[in-house]
Amino acid sequence: MNINEANATAVGRMISARPMLTGVGAARDVIPGMRDRLLLHAGPPIEWQRMSGPMRGAIIGALLFEGLAATEQEATELVAAGEIDFEPCHHHQAVGPMAGVTSASMAVYVVETAETGAVQRSFSNLNEGYGKVLRYGAFAPEVLDKLRWMNEVMAPLLASALNALGGIDLRALVAEALHMGDEGHNRNKAGSLIFTKLLAPAVTEASDDRAAAAEVVRFLGDNALSVLNPVMAACKAMADAAHGVEGSTVVTAMARNGTDFGIRVSGMGDDWFTAPAATPDGLYFSGFTSDDANPDIGDSTITETAGIGAFAMAAAPAIVTFVSGTPRDALNATLEMYDITVGEHQHFTIPQLDFRGSPVGIDLRKVVELGVTPRVNTGIAHREAGVGQVGAGLVRPPVAIFEQALNAFADRYGI
Amino acid sequence: MNINEANATAVGRMISARPMLTGVGAARDVIPGMRDRLLLHAGPPIEWQRMSGPMRGAIIGALLFEGLAATEQEATELVAAGEIDFEPCHHHQAVGPMAGVTSASMAVYVVETAETGAVQRSFSNLNEGYGKVLRYGAFAPEVLDKLRWMNEVMAPLLASALNALGGIDLRALVAEALHMGDEGHNRNKAGSLIFTKLLAPAVTEASDDRAAAAEVVRFLGDNALSVLNPVMAACKAMADAAHGVEGSTVVTAMARNGTDFGIRVSGMGDDWFTAPAATPDGLYFSGFTSDDANPDIGDSTITETAGIGAFAMAAAPAIVTFVSGTPRDALNATLEMYDITVGEHQHFTIPQLDFRGSPVGIDLRKVVELGVTPRVNTGIAHREAGVGQVGAGLVRPPVAIFEQALNAFADRYGI
Repeated sequence: MNINEANATAVGRMISARPMLTGVGAARDVIPGMRDRLLLHAGPPIEWQRMSGPMRGAIIGALLFEGLAATEQEATELVAAGEIDFEPCHHHQAVGPMAGVTSASMAVYVVETAETGAVQRSFSNLNEGYGKVLRYGAFAPEVLDKLRWMNEVMAPLLASALNALGGIDLRALVAEALHMGDEGHNRNKAGSLIFTKLLAPAVTEASDDRAAAAEVVRFLGDNALSVLNPVMAACKAMADAAHGVEGSTVVTAMARNGTDFGIRVSGMGDDWFTAPAATPDGLYFSGFTSDDANPDIGDSTITETAGIGAFAMAAAPAIVTFVSGTPRDALNATLEMYDITVGEHQHFTIPQLDFRGSPVGIDLRKVVELGVTPRVNTGIAHREAGVGQVGAGLVRPPVAIFEQALNAFADRYGI
Repeated sequence: MNINEANATAVGRMISARPMLTGVGAARDVIPGMRDRLLLHAGPPIEWQRMSGPMRGAIIGALLFEGLAATEQEATELVAAGEIDFEPCHHHQAVGPMAGVTSASMAVYVVETAETGAVQRSFSNLNEGYGKVLRYGAFAPEVLDKLRWMNEVMAPLLASALNALGGIDLRALVAEALHMGDEGHNRNKAGSLIFTKLLAPAVTEASDDRAAAAEVVRFLGDNALSVLNPVMAACKAMADAAHGVEGSTVVTAMARNGTDFGIRVSGMGDDWFTAPAATPDGLYFSGFTSDDANPDIGDSTITETAGIGAFAMAAAPAIVTFVSGTPRDALNATLEMYDITVGEHQHFTIPQLDFRGSPVGIDLRKVVELGVTPRVNTGIAHREAGVGQVGAGLVRPPVAIFEQALNAFADRYGI
């Protein structure tokens, strides 16, 4: 068995995957295995008892949204009675930022990738914008009202618009955004504007209610994270393309549920390797400090898994105003990641590094040998249910996960 | 007389001016001194006999557009008969990219700047996008059809949308675009997307014809130079704010008519100092070479005059794919411009230089002392009327202009 060859195969597939955003539909209609009393969540598997505040808050919000509970107390009682199932988004080809909680009625993006003949599908929920939002664990009435508007007004118009457009090439969108100061995870200003300009005329044409169309276009355009969710679904598709290569030590998922950080490895099947998540370092919104911060949470580390996010931070010097540090730190973040990756991305290039491809395909062996863990840019959630975002910053997964995974790899392959 | 103090005053005014895009109207209705048989053009004054091919082509197109001539031959006969007046855009608080030809019926952007109490107005025509366009000297039927669509369909919707929005803060737009890989002259991808996302919902709301609204939004969004023209009008306003300071050697206009490069100086009234324009170095579209290139043309050097464009090229490393060179060259372009400028911009900052302000306020004395002329990013027009754009590249004004201006300055102030 040649691990280097296996890794080259895995990363080659990750790079050549070309995910297209093709539609929007209700989770129950499009996500395989989705059902009414199932909630999907970010990160590796976790039971209610061990869930963090923001994850619990998002679950309460989702149960209220679905009408399965009328109050916070009813929601927690329903969960305590064992009436609700929890499974990772990742077990359903889906991803979601922060809490990532996705319920059966929620509209989700559908991404299709057809590299190897059969079309693979991946999914993500819709981005809610800023302020009080479910993904950060808020569940106040205005949070649910916005989710209802997104489901009832925005989603059908996006579905019509995407149908009329024949889809959006998300790999091309990310490539362009990296030349416009985005890194694709915490900074998606340019990508969201490209997304909005592609959708806006089609949304306008799709509706005979011009006020509704304008509201949707304004919501997309004013939210610098509009495109994060479909980009995450695209990264999930790229990472999954690299999964399942016998003998490969390439990491194909990194995800956090707010309690644990978990990874999956190409040559290690469906196993998760987990350890307690760290708390990000970063900049806090006025009135909040690191004491308020929940440990690292969300599936959005799928961006770093696919070679963007903190891995492409050299392309996004202005991000330091948001996550702390200097433009030099941003450059160094990318340079360091070349040490622990297998390849350089042919489509995601970084002008600041003379158009060098972004570092892609985390090699478990290199992480353990060098003791250098992947860098991650992230939002920071309040540790209590119902509050929301308190800042943004930088974090790394615990090295123990990679050691654990490498030991398991050695056992499995008899090395 | 203290020249340094005068220059500090001039540049201070340039930096603190805050131009707002407030409207769209017909040139004859909004531009002071505009009249039916007057054509405005880019650059310093020039008579028909000395005009370059692309300038003549644009003039023929404008006369056809206005219905003053029915054929190319009629148009040139009309001009030969002395029936048409030509004056620089700059003599009417206006600017236009490339040929800059603006006629009485054409819709123009209105920019208002109210720093010193009285509102100052500046103007620019609307950007036509790519392909065969008047500003590059093309005047085929499809060029005129597009201009008519812009005038009849797009302009009224933009006027309504700007009215509903209460204007767009162009200084804030440029500041944000510089953090997204634009330099504001040849690369306006991000700025045009911001522009589109601000206008799109208001355009959608402004029209009961959703197909027309969608077409306008698509046209704005697909044209990475949509915002160039209003940004130029904003730069004109900023540069004019610095004009007329007694004893100042700050350059307040740089403009080319395709034959001559001309500058104006803050402390030198309305005088132009001119010399033959150079031909840009750059990258040519397929099928064209430098033999096809017209000398430098257009008012768009107002961007460099105001501290963006090539002066802010460090912010736009990806531009080198379009104008030639490497990202390091882009960085060096900005660094060199600090040597010949008076100040650093408080609003236009460059992430790649640790958020240092862009070099702003060209000092005539420094240009002559160091022999370093301002850098300019530019499009390249075919030298024959009716063809269009053949490439994009880099150019500098002849040093003789600055020597001429400095001599005149010394004469005037008895130095």
